[in-house]
Amino acid sequence: MTEETNAIPASLPLRNDLIGETPYGAPQLDVPVCLNVNENPYEPNLDVCATIARRVGEIAHTLNRYPDREHIALRQAFSDYLAKESGTRLAVDQLWGANGSNEIMLQLFQAFGGPGRTALGCDPTYSMYPEYARDTFTGWKLAHRNADFTLDVDAAIAAIHEIKPSMVILTSPNNPTGTPLPPADLERILEVCETADVAGAADGVHPIVVVDEAYVEFRNPGTPSAVTLIAQHPNLAVSRTMSKAFAFAGARVGYLAASKGIIDCVRIVRMPYHLSAVTQAAALAALEHTDEQLSQVAHLRETREATAAWLKTQTYQGRPLEVAASESNFLLFGGHFDQRDRIFDELLKRGVLIRVVGPDGWLRVCMGTDDEMARFREALAEVLHIVEAE
Amino acid sequence: MTEETNAIPASLPLRNDLIGETPYGAPQLDVPVCLNVNENPYEPNLDVCATIARRVGEIAHTLNRYPDREHIALRQAFSDYLAKESGTRLAVDQLWGANGSNEIMLQLFQAFGGPGRTALGCDPTYSMYPEYARDTFTGWKLAHRNADFTLDVDAAIAAIHEIKPSMVILTSPNNPTGTPLPPADLERILEVCETADVAGAADGVHPIVVVDEAYVEFRNPGTPSAVTLIAQHPNLAVSRTMSKAFAFAGARVGYLAASKGIIDCVRIVRMPYHLSAVTQAAALAALEHTDEQLSQVAHLRETREATAAWLKTQTYQGRPLEVAASESNFLLFGGHFDQRDRIFDELLKRGVLIRVVGPDGWLRVCMGTDDEMARFREALAEVLHIVEAE
Repeated sequence: MTEETNAIPASLPLRNDLIGETPYGAPQLDVPVCLNVNENPYEPNLDVCATIARRVGEIAHTLNRYPDREHIALRQAFSDYLAKESGTRLAVDQLWGANGSNEIMLQLFQAFGGPGRTALGCDPTYSMYPEYARDTFTGWKLAHRNADFTLDVDAAIAAIHEIKPSMVILTSPNNPTGTPLPPADLERILEVCETADVAGAADGVHPIVVVDEAYVEFRNPGTPSAVTLIAQHPNLAVSRTMSKAFAFAGARVGYLAASKGIIDCVRIVRMPYHLSAVTQAAALAALEHTDEQLSQVAHLRETREATAAWLKTQTYQGRPLEVAASESNFLLFGGHFDQRDRIFDELLKRGVLIRVVGPDGWLRVCMGTDDEMARFREALAEVLHIVEAE
Repeated sequence: MTEETNAIPASLPLRNDLIGETPYGAPQLDVPVCLNVNENPYEPNLDVCATIARRVGEIAHTLNRYPDREHIALRQAFSDYLAKESGTRLAVDQLWGANGSNEIMLQLFQAFGGPGRTALGCDPTYSMYPEYARDTFTGWKLAHRNADFTLDVDAAIAAIHEIKPSMVILTSPNNPTGTPLPPADLERILEVCETADVAGAADGVHPIVVVDEAYVEFRNPGTPSAVTLIAQHPNLAVSRTMSKAFAFAGARVGYLAASKGIIDCVRIVRMPYHLSAVTQAAALAALEHTDEQLSQVAHLRETREATAAWLKTQTYQGRPLEVAASESNFLLFGGHFDQRDRIFDELLKRGVLIRVVGPDGWLRVCMGTDDEMARFREALAEVLHIVEAE
């Protein structure tokens, strides 16, 4: 893996805490099999593409004007989508869209974080969270997960009481581990947060609980989404995205489901007109085709189960690979790779790009098409053999 | 003007400094004549719309994948545009795009501002700057302009030495006054900043000078853009947008021209994949039609000159209206309105929406189509008569 070298001239007043930092992001390489950024590998079909082109074409003549700053039609479409996907109907003022769920998360950190405030995550977890914290001068603390990557609820609750965070970030399912968040665990955290103090804030101010559901459509059918709890929990914010199961990463559309109060806080810090008319039109077009866009999700779940089963049959240095239980479209596997960078590089040489992320000893692979997974299996079997023999 | 009432529940941990704040933005009203947000009133033509739909349609099948995080093709197109518009050819790594120039400005504040840092503006100036400062915990200080709204260069230089800002924000032409920034004034500021200290930074660190050229295409022909100075000034950052003269506000595309070092700093704080594939395709489509998109700029300049001349023939309370000298697509006028909110409201009743902004006693109107300007003139003549008679 080559990291970008970053030689910022010393005369520039870059923030001291950013000196030496490099831009976040997985390497963008032109590789036949890309299994590194948890995309849905199945392209939008011709009908969807036609609707996108048509709807963008329809609004093109208005592009000299600013877009609807409140993106009301899109928020209504999110409401319709969630009513279908989660069984819960939210009002337009309980929804909010942005350029990817990372803009949603940044807006939440801008509204509820800041100097003197702390956000609490449960590691191992998504590696962008500390970047949002850094970019908003929010403290970032961690409560550790159990060895099997499930949430250690008692440890999280103890940390909430000790650290007094303004934000508690839960990830459901978790990234990079794929671990689901049982609804009972979430409800315990919510209950605690509804009376917990926030350091430096007035009495009666309580932390918000952010549930990042980027991958939630891949959960096992029948599991409730955190969206079902919004009506009862005014401090609950659920972040969602069209980038993963919905196969719309290129359009950068994330959204937030929460109480009107939380949405109103985010509206204070959002850039005016942050969501373009083109993005709004493209997202509305894709949401017209929800069934097609989600049509491969069940198959990707099967791919995950089959891939997990296959990985467990593989060995490295005489021991079977471990595979973290996942309800997402990716698998964290290995557990005892002493040379994970080397395994990554050898896979890359064979045209298969996965991700070095998560705790030492593990690698992450996302679910591709059947052909892509066949190439992954073939390459990995070969690579494990080569690397362990060295 | 009705301000939004904002009743955030007290239990939410909204940042203390945001309590009582309302979302930034001009009122979004459905009015026949909108002259409030400095848009180009002329719609993209049918050819442009067709190219936008075609290019978005062409990339629609890739939308399951993340976009090019570095948006190289678009940066190349910005380079081509600026070569034509300013006569200066910049390299791709001297350019950077974002969702509107306000995201560009936010990224600059994120990279170069922060707690303990100060940004210096010259007021009256654009009312979003203090919001960027607020959202990044950057101090915000002002040096005052001359009475005719030209830059008081000596006052600005004195403030640079006294405040030791990390960022100096100049606006060329200025908003809401329309005032041009003479190249010699900019060069004096640049020269001072190249040796000036930054409070709290190491020796040898100097402020960056941000020139916000949102409206620069409306300047008088022959005036050089600040882009021409980038090669000689590594601490100069020029912010541009497609939202104004380029008639593309709805697509939210801003861009930054600067030294590679400044671009690299911004890349550290940008959200990964901040610029969607749809936005990149739409912007490339519009840039293919640069001549058409800019075809009304000369006419809008003429409209500005004619409107300024007409405004000066109008009186309020027995005195002619003042009109600030403008090289933009808007005019700040009045100067002695003792009831500017009332004048705004009466214009609105007549279907004409302008903006209450800038120093007390002034109002801002942007240039519309010929019909829109006729309606503005008719309404304003009537309203001035009514209000002064009360």
